[in-house]
Amino acid sequence: MAERIGEVSGPARLARSGEGISAQELALAARNHGLPLEALRYDVTPPGLHYVLTHFDIPAVDTTAWRLALNGRVRTALDLDLRALRGRPAVTHRVTMECAGNGRARLSPRPVSQPWLVEAVGTADWTGVPLRHLLAEAGVEPDAVEVVFTGADHGVERGVEQDYRRSLPLAVALAGDPEVLVAYGMNGAPLPPQHGCPLRLVVPGWYGMAHVKWLREITVTDTPFTGFQQSVAYRYRHEPDDPGEPVTRIEPRALMVPPGFPDFMSRVRVVRPGEVRLEGRAWSGHAPVVRVEVSTDDGRSWTRAELAPPDGGSWSWHHWHTTWTATPGSHVLSVRATDADARTQPLSQSWNRGGFGNNLVQRVDVLCPAPDESLPPA
Amino acid sequence: MAERIGEVSGPARLARSGEGISAQELALAARNHGLPLEALRYDVTPPGLHYVLTHFDIPAVDTTAWRLALNGRVRTALDLDLRALRGRPAVTHRVTMECAGNGRARLSPRPVSQPWLVEAVGTADWTGVPLRHLLAEAGVEPDAVEVVFTGADHGVERGVEQDYRRSLPLAVALAGDPEVLVAYGMNGAPLPPQHGCPLRLVVPGWYGMAHVKWLREITVTDTPFTGFQQSVAYRYRHEPDDPGEPVTRIEPRALMVPPGFPDFMSRVRVVRPGEVRLEGRAWSGHAPVVRVEVSTDDGRSWTRAELAPPDGGSWSWHHWHTTWTATPGSHVLSVRATDADARTQPLSQSWNRGGFGNNLVQRVDVLCPAPDESLPPA
Repeated sequence: MAERIGEVSGPARLARSGEGISAQELALAARNHGLPLEALRYDVTPPGLHYVLTHFDIPAVDTTAWRLALNGRVRTALDLDLRALRGRPAVTHRVTMECAGNGRARLSPRPVSQPWLVEAVGTADWTGVPLRHLLAEAGVEPDAVEVVFTGADHGVERGVEQDYRRSLPLAVALAGDPEVLVAYGMNGAPLPPQHGCPLRLVVPGWYGMAHVKWLREITVTDTPFTGFQQSVAYRYRHEPDDPGEPVTRIEPRALMVPPGFPDFMSRVRVVRPGEVRLEGRAWSGHAPVVRVEVSTDDGRSWTRAELAPPDGGSWSWHHWHTTWTATPGSHVLSVRATDADARTQPLSQSWNRGGFGNNLVQRVDVLCPAPDESLPPA
Repeated sequence: MAERIGEVSGPARLARSGEGISAQELALAARNHGLPLEALRYDVTPPGLHYVLTHFDIPAVDTTAWRLALNGRVRTALDLDLRALRGRPAVTHRVTMECAGNGRARLSPRPVSQPWLVEAVGTADWTGVPLRHLLAEAGVEPDAVEVVFTGADHGVERGVEQDYRRSLPLAVALAGDPEVLVAYGMNGAPLPPQHGCPLRLVVPGWYGMAHVKWLREITVTDTPFTGFQQSVAYRYRHEPDDPGEPVTRIEPRALMVPPGFPDFMSRVRVVRPGEVRLEGRAWSGHAPVVRVEVSTDDGRSWTRAELAPPDGGSWSWHHWHTTWTATPGSHVLSVRATDADARTQPLSQSWNRGGFGNNLVQRVDVLCPAPDESLPPA
């Protein structure tokens, strides 16, 4: 019988060879969710389809009593309610957000955590107050180096009880492009509970762990933050005792709306012979996407797709499309994005212990039935 | 290489002993999602937290061109656009909806399908036109026996290509309490894409498979419907060749908001010693819930909880609460609902091949740390 938190809150582990998804991973997959890939059709992801990852519980919140404190190495600490925040000049930015662990469940060996396949992404119009304006109002002291953000979500992870807390370098927090937001609106409505109601951070171009939800405190510090989510979790490392490199910006990725229609269980796609429009989205948190290539022969050959500019500023995804002539048989479709920094997607996995920043190309299994196959009616 | 649909769309199967969750089950779990159990705190489930199960894809929909046909054994067929539906007298009903496969992933052997644990539930305020009024307007012929509902979602399941389609007995379709709705609104807003935008059926008291989404056709028939989702899927059967009994109304169930705070990976709850409020929801699609009992010793003893009336009519869940004095050690908390028909929840599994109507009591693992355990700081 467990009596110590350490007995129910173990260290990070890798799945054994051939080990199926565990009950614990399934419990995370049942509460968190990805973007159903057909929802890549929407420029802005409708509510409820944007990916969600919550480390602990969605906190119970009284929005009328909510306060945001801004303190630490500032000349004048701020203590703001929602009305005060809404009274300040607001901006709206369209931002594509992706979980740092997207793709983790496809890795071998598989890091045991939230088992994302490829769908942990979404794009929203986020409305709020630029963080740099709040920091300017408070007056950042010359010795400041980082800004620490504290959420109201509380739990234990690998034996460490904590409020969810992450930091940004001061230069990122003060930058004008991308501009970090203290957001209270998503797609023209108040934030839903699972997206941080009433306040969250939005850090365009960064993986989701930086966009602290249920934001209640912003602390300017004169030393680098060493909390759990900064120095233990969200590091690129190969061995458990590597110090590792911090996970920051989103690696380039393209995804396809799976064409045709699916089989319920296998999710294999069925298409009819002939011309098939292939389309989807591509993004990178480092630099604009400059090239999207599509393969219809399991990665052996690639052709350029038509790439649109991002339709909501520099930090949202780009639409892409091309045409494929389907012929009877099985096909594997893939798509690959490259950004202006020449970062691209690997064709074989680039592994790390946390399963972070994985941007292995998507594989979409498609069956084009033989013309003589008459399908049984429903 | 697959060349036939049957090669990518197999028969139903049971997991082998010890077989972990498969990649196919995970792909379903990543796109569909349950209610994070802390969201049982809301009387009405906020958008994006209500469970979602989509057999095929969320269809691409042009709401301005959408038409609902009502035809078959009626005197005057109807062909209505959304404006015509919105122009008719509307009603709003608060309805608790649950997936018929809820609890499936806990069964042994496990039916391989959408791997729900216990969270496939939600409650919404659904607004629309009573189906009985539309049927009265069209004039049902005396030989009518069933009403068939066709959605715009299309795919293949166990080798059968199909539009999603289900029927109701005529008496259910015409009933006044519960009243079946052709709904266009959810919680005061248009239906979101994943909940059937622009139209869905709402059948209070029935499992989710009856609430046909993306509804485009209603056909009154003089013979019972024998389509795939009626006569192959959604049957209670023990052997593959049983004709089985149809899955219809929701079995009673109670769920608890897990107390305290979670461990990220194990989801075990941590509570402090002392009084802990336990609360949650209870519902049944057969009759009002009349008793909720709580066990804090893994089902050995049970005490009555305080049960509130449903706050939105007869077809939404009831709130319940009680108090527990937590003592150091491990505990398993459970809750059990009983309805006015004396239906209750089993303490050991009642198995069927589809994993339907499973209402085994919930088990919540809780650790109350020893008072001398000082937790490491974040």
